[in-house]
Amino acid sequence: MRLVSFLRHGFEWTGPRTGAQIGENTLDLQHATTLRLVETEHLTGDTARRLADVLSPTDMTELVAGGQVTLDAIRATHEWARADSDRASSALLGDSEITLLPVLPKPPLIRDFMAFEQHLQNIFPRLGREIPPEWYNIPVYYKGNPSAVGAHGDDVTIPSDCKEMDFEFELAAVIGRGGSDIAREDAMAHIFGFTVYNDLSARDLQQQEMSVGLGPAKGKDFARAHVFGPCLVTIDEIGDIYSKSAEAFVNGKSWCKGNVGDMHWKFEDMIAHASRHEELVPGEIFGSGTFGGGSAMEQGKFLSAGDTLDLKIQGIGTLHNRLVSAM
Amino acid sequence: MRLVSFLRHGFEWTGPRTGAQIGENTLDLQHATTLRLVETEHLTGDTARRLADVLSPTDMTELVAGGQVTLDAIRATHEWARADSDRASSALLGDSEITLLPVLPKPPLIRDFMAFEQHLQNIFPRLGREIPPEWYNIPVYYKGNPSAVGAHGDDVTIPSDCKEMDFEFELAAVIGRGGSDIAREDAMAHIFGFTVYNDLSARDLQQQEMSVGLGPAKGKDFARAHVFGPCLVTIDEIGDIYSKSAEAFVNGKSWCKGNVGDMHWKFEDMIAHASRHEELVPGEIFGSGTFGGGSAMEQGKFLSAGDTLDLKIQGIGTLHNRLVSAM
Repeated sequence: MRLVSFLRHGFEWTGPRTGAQIGENTLDLQHATTLRLVETEHLTGDTARRLADVLSPTDMTELVAGGQVTLDAIRATHEWARADSDRASSALLGDSEITLLPVLPKPPLIRDFMAFEQHLQNIFPRLGREIPPEWYNIPVYYKGNPSAVGAHGDDVTIPSDCKEMDFEFELAAVIGRGGSDIAREDAMAHIFGFTVYNDLSARDLQQQEMSVGLGPAKGKDFARAHVFGPCLVTIDEIGDIYSKSAEAFVNGKSWCKGNVGDMHWKFEDMIAHASRHEELVPGEIFGSGTFGGGSAMEQGKFLSAGDTLDLKIQGIGTLHNRLVSAM
Repeated sequence: MRLVSFLRHGFEWTGPRTGAQIGENTLDLQHATTLRLVETEHLTGDTARRLADVLSPTDMTELVAGGQVTLDAIRATHEWARADSDRASSALLGDSEITLLPVLPKPPLIRDFMAFEQHLQNIFPRLGREIPPEWYNIPVYYKGNPSAVGAHGDDVTIPSDCKEMDFEFELAAVIGRGGSDIAREDAMAHIFGFTVYNDLSARDLQQQEMSVGLGPAKGKDFARAHVFGPCLVTIDEIGDIYSKSAEAFVNGKSWCKGNVGDMHWKFEDMIAHASRHEELVPGEIFGSGTFGGGSAMEQGKFLSAGDTLDLKIQGIGTLHNRLVSAM
């Protein structure tokens, strides 16, 4: 399944909702599950809605946390609606009826790694430094602010004090089942699915704060700086993630081509490392780090207001955003 | 009020609960609010409990997020119970009836700053470095894993791969009202209250990962590494936070004395900085950074299994923990 979070126009008061893509449309999962339970289980509307609230949560983190229980329910609803779209028509929404949200509007945590060696080979010489030897020993990461997430299609405002705006083209895995001390060979079973990640970066702010040693903060946590979308593809649907091609376009022009298989550190390494003596919880996001060439800095450039970013990963889709200047 | 989160023995299935200290006892707030509404408003038990679930949330982040609405309700309950403890007796619990949890079992974010200059003056020469000049320009911070929180009284396991265990004695502010671009002069109105913070640190793991530049992660995020307690004191109760004395004891011996007023960067500076172009949400934690002398590293020492830590801040209390070795 290809899942999204959205606001339904006219129903914004119900808050974020979860959906599954069917062709060009979005199936409102809680609404459709209610319809399905009324039709197939002969429940009353009230009872069906009460069950649907729990079996098919409107919050993506809760949906992910529900594991096989919620997956089974939404899969049944998805198949029921695909088999006969007429019966689900009131829950099947066109693009003009919704506003997309970040695939997880409130992830419990964002860890962002640095898994592609090519990105470091491009960056560190520009900083006058060698790649730190420790990078080859452990998959390091920083943590992003989960309140600073953005959605597919969002205009993202360049912070008014930033003169060196950049992006980072990444793949992200969403944790399904939590746990600690997860073995590398068990790690894939803890992934719920994948999405595209644009880790927007104010390089000047980032370098200023990183000089003290505590890592990036304001340089990567301004409003909507962590963009996740256009959808969250469940792991059963995507096939071998390490065979997927990737391409980034700035203002419609190809800037880099890569393959997920180029990752030096794999998601299995990241999960084993992060979960050592530490508990992972459902809905956490693991960013891959930047594909080689997947940032402006690597080309000695920066971005400006009006620039568009289209980040495409095979099997997921293209994450689109535009930069705008502060008013 | 002095608030805590706890598990109630025999009622663990109800999950974490919130309480207010009355003398040596803990008032179960949702339970006591139910009793109060039955007695003073003549509501049925069912209705009173339904209202109490929302007005007096069992989750501390929700309680904090409820702002004046929840504060008014729990304050009324607290005063009602203090006026006549007999009527609240079934909700008034002794130490043996509860297990304390971290004051916020699920904070949305932990930012940890580095506000005390003395700590840097003690640390950087040991690392063969000068204090980074940027430290004087902006209040830098790293972000801790909100799932790795510990409680007053917890035994904390030293990670099996850590040979250089340490603590950091800090004060923490909990954000009440959220917002972005908060002015320095408005910042105090966004603080809900204060608690003591022990930022346990595996120095060897921390230095290993920090050499790559993304800041600390595994070195500070192992299970229960961020300890908050023994209670969360509301801002109206604490008075002038910058007048409070502080003292840390290791194995009962005084290791450092300080004063909150020694902070070079104040909470107002941190909130103004962190909220710039970035949204703060209720329940976020702002750590002060380490009081001068409030770590073992500053004395050229490390900690061992069996060591006890007692961190005392005037007006809040003493946060106690013991280190244990992995089995």
